[in-house]
Amino acid sequence: MSTRLGDLVDSLGGELIGDPALTITGIAPLEAAGPSHITFLSNPKLRAAAAGTGAGALILSRAEHEKLAGYACARIISDNPYAYFARTAQYFAALATQPPLPGIHPSASVDAGASVAPSAVIGPLVTIEAGAIVGEHCVIGAGCFIGKDARVGAHTLFYPNVSFLADCHIGERGIVQSGAVIGGDGFGFANDKGRWIKIPQTGGVRIGDDVEIGANTTIDRGALDPTVIEDGVKLDNQIQIAHNCVIGAHTAMAGCVGVAGSAKIGKHCTFGGAAMVLGHLTIADNVHISSGSLVSRSISESGQYTGFYPLAKNADWEKTAAVVRQLDAMRDRVRELEKAVRELTAKDK
Amino acid sequence: MSTRLGDLVDSLGGELIGDPALTITGIAPLEAAGPSHITFLSNPKLRAAAAGTGAGALILSRAEHEKLAGYACARIISDNPYAYFARTAQYFAALATQPPLPGIHPSASVDAGASVAPSAVIGPLVTIEAGAIVGEHCVIGAGCFIGKDARVGAHTLFYPNVSFLADCHIGERGIVQSGAVIGGDGFGFANDKGRWIKIPQTGGVRIGDDVEIGANTTIDRGALDPTVIEDGVKLDNQIQIAHNCVIGAHTAMAGCVGVAGSAKIGKHCTFGGAAMVLGHLTIADNVHISSGSLVSRSISESGQYTGFYPLAKNADWEKTAAVVRQLDAMRDRVRELEKAVRELTAKDK
Amino acid sequence: MSTRLGDLVDSLGGELIGDPALTITGIAPLEAAGPSHITFLSNPKLRAAAAGTGAGALILSRAEHEKLAGYACARIISDNPYAYFARTAQYFAALATQPPLPGIHPSASVDAGASVAPSAVIGPLVTIEAGAIVGEHCVIGAGCFIGKDARVGAHTLFYPNVSFLADCHIGERGIVQSGAVIGGDGFGFANDKGRWIKIPQTGGVRIGDDVEIGANTTIDRGALDPTVIEDGVKLDNQIQIAHNCVIGAHTAMAGCVGVAGSAKIGKHCTFGGAAMVLGHLTIADNVHISSGSLVSRSISESGQYTGFYPLAKNADWEKTAAVVRQLDAMRDRVRELEKAVRELTAKDK
Repeated sequence: MSTRLGDLVDSLGGELIGDPALTITGIAPLEAAGPSHITFLSNPKLRAAAAGTGAGALILSRAEHEKLAGYACARIISDNPYAYFARTAQYFAALATQPPLPGIHPSASVDAGASVAPSAVIGPLVTIEAGAIVGEHCVIGAGCFIGKDARVGAHTLFYPNVSFLADCHIGERGIVQSGAVIGGDGFGFANDKGRWIKIPQTGGVRIGDDVEIGANTTIDRGALDPTVIEDGVKLDNQIQIAHNCVIGAHTAMAGCVGVAGSAKIGKHCTFGGAAMVLGHLTIADNVHISSGSLVSRSISESGQYTGFYPLAKNADWEKTAAVVRQLDAMRDRVRELEKAVRELTAKDK
Repeated sequence: MSTRLGDLVDSLGGELIGDPALTITGIAPLEAAGPSHITFLSNPKLRAAAAGTGAGALILSRAEHEKLAGYACARIISDNPYAYFARTAQYFAALATQPPLPGIHPSASVDAGASVAPSAVIGPLVTIEAGAIVGEHCVIGAGCFIGKDARVGAHTLFYPNVSFLADCHIGERGIVQSGAVIGGDGFGFANDKGRWIKIPQTGGVRIGDDVEIGANTTIDRGALDPTVIEDGVKLDNQIQIAHNCVIGAHTAMAGCVGVAGSAKIGKHCTFGGAAMVLGHLTIADNVHISSGSLVSRSISESGQYTGFYPLAKNADWEKTAAVVRQLDAMRDRVRELEKAVRELTAKDK
Repeated sequence: MSTRLGDLVDSLGGELIGDPALTITGIAPLEAAGPSHITFLSNPKLRAAAAGTGAGALILSRAEHEKLAGYACARIISDNPYAYFARTAQYFAALATQPPLPGIHPSASVDAGASVAPSAVIGPLVTIEAGAIVGEHCVIGAGCFIGKDARVGAHTLFYPNVSFLADCHIGERGIVQSGAVIGGDGFGFANDKGRWIKIPQTGGVRIGDDVEIGANTTIDRGALDPTVIEDGVKLDNQIQIAHNCVIGAHTAMAGCVGVAGSAKIGKHCTFGGAAMVLGHLTIADNVHISSGSLVSRSISESGQYTGFYPLAKNADWEKTAAVVRQLDAMRDRVRELEKAVRELTAKDK
């Protein structure tokens, strides 16, 4: 698999400075790249490395292009070299991938009342229930389950062993990784004299276009209204989205994040790994939560928020934790000291 | 799907004030309900909203009934309006659901030595091993695995792709959501000169009646004795219960909770999302752990317990975290100050 | 199932003091053991219990052997009684287990281009894609997926419903618990004007020999280079290992741990439950992280590290958390006090 550099630029845009006939066989990091590789410079700190790279072609910004001397091969100038690199990687991945043949594997169990587009690929041992709709060019991996009246938009990919339950919808160009469960019952119970009475969860899940859902991530169905994941959201592995949450468009969450019920998350937010959001909160757009932080109140102002206990050697932590347990007493002692010092100072005058 | 209001009250109890012939088609929130809906008032703060609801019927307590003026339609008086609402929702969900036909799907792989009740429903591509017993009216979703000598009590529902391994038992009326794994090996190893030697895990899992287990939740088998989940326990998604834990009856845990090995949790406890319990601890009955809190010692007194670092703007967190790291030094400085002030005060007299 | 005590010692080593013809039927804890059981003493605090045990045989160290009076039955002296116990448990587990018959279940979907060793056991409803290699004496549980060009080393066991995706390798004697997903896409995106552009993840996963992977644990494939799990690593349930991590040999992680992308973890480390490691960090060998602790910086020195907020009654936590939020102000107040006291003391002289 290889491409002419000119073909790549014709496809992805940007300004080419160099030979369009150059053969490029793939991408590589700055240090490892050879004359048939393309690489990129997005961090000015790596300018010296870029000057010395052996790559045949380099993606960089106009500003870096003007500063970078000593690199003699082809250059592609782009407003966003890192995004250009991502699209270049997609370009090579598409060259390397042979799309599977359309059709339904004979071992799959597809209900006569389901609708599967002719261009879709249904893998071995898949179950599709009545009323489900699988769009054009979808690829449904081995062992997936698609429930009653579920809908899967065109060009969406399910890796093997996804559970996509009744009345869940996902839009176009989605990717769902293995083990994800979409549409489990929300966790809703009323307590009656110590016993939990289940509240049936009859809302579905509505997922927009261009959404990626990670391995073993769970998104519960809503109680009455659906749980909503808007366009362009990216969820990493092992994330839990509870019933009736709304995750705003183009928000990204790293692994092990949890969002409790009915939380409304804004657009273009990011969540570090294992961040947690309590239920019924509202988070504004462009909020960034650091890893390991628990969001216990609504956030109305964009910005970066953090809340985790700093790591220390265990012996040091033991000492500081002992003080933390008595911090209100220490505050009182400081107040007493302030009062005593005020009195002493007054007398002293 | 609809019901006479009188039929609902005949089925669920409570005192009806109004026309038993009223046709009710479903439940709705106070603000959205119309004349064919039933709704409920459980929070006194919503009394004004209840007075103005358009619902045809309202579930409420006797105390609220006596205070609520301005609402002219039917009323159902109940000791616990929220639980009554939950049962009403179950009532309508049952009306809306057509139970699947009993029998074993031809694509399922059921060992001749397994026992499946005639009224049970075994979905496509299910595996059931020798010695397993599946009770009356069970529904086992597509792709589930039920291992050797496992037992599933009557009226229990497995959503698709559950792994219920050898020698695990669950009682009656259970619900297991997709992706849950019951009976994985407990994490037990002996260290020998830096190498980990596996300790075989031969205990099973014993789960009582009326237990719900969330999507992708894992409950490990015990080392020698079984791991125990008592009656009425409700576990949300992505929870990890390690080997030889005992979870007391009617305890509920929200998503992403983890309980380490051999912890004994009391009855009627609640755990907020992502709470963690260390191994070999004992937690009393009626203990409530806040979200994101790590339980590092046994708790013998009921009550609410909390331990998470408060969230702040990142810049503010940076400042407070720097102080936390030196809190023991600050305590020493406060002691020095107290000593100095005592001396000054003494001289001053 | 039973064994002669002498046969056990012939197989596992150690020094037998007692009758080799004694029949042993299994292992049991000190308090519960009877005359046909073998038990062990590894904690000196349990010496009195060991003296009173009814076990037919006792595994103990030479030091304990010399101190222990009052126990009259057979003794096995071992350098590491706990590891000897683990191996004894393996010995009895092997006696109790009837290995499944080799062969491919007729309901499995095995591509003609896959290579399955004749001694391997392929369960019902398994999918194996072209180019995959499954080694001698492997056992692949029901519903597992093994992707294109994946490799499974000899004597490796997959419990049911494992997803082992394309171009992932695992060595010999591995164990993968149900629901684990090996080789999901790493979470890699470039942001372009607010939209996330996927970076294809084309590295695989390389797992060494003697590795155990817990239920619903996820290990992502690398971006270009593979994610690496070295020999002897033990991962508990619900762990997330992101793309391009390296987990050093014989490191063990308890449930719910998360490791962000490109982190390099040393050998012989241990991680308590729900510990988290940020991306691109380096952790030295023999580092031990306490449960619930977030590792936000690289660690170059071995030892135990901790960082979690201490649990308290909720009312007490409310008080201390309020002080934590203003800790930098308190530090400033202490500084002011120190200055004032210095001045007072100076005048006083």
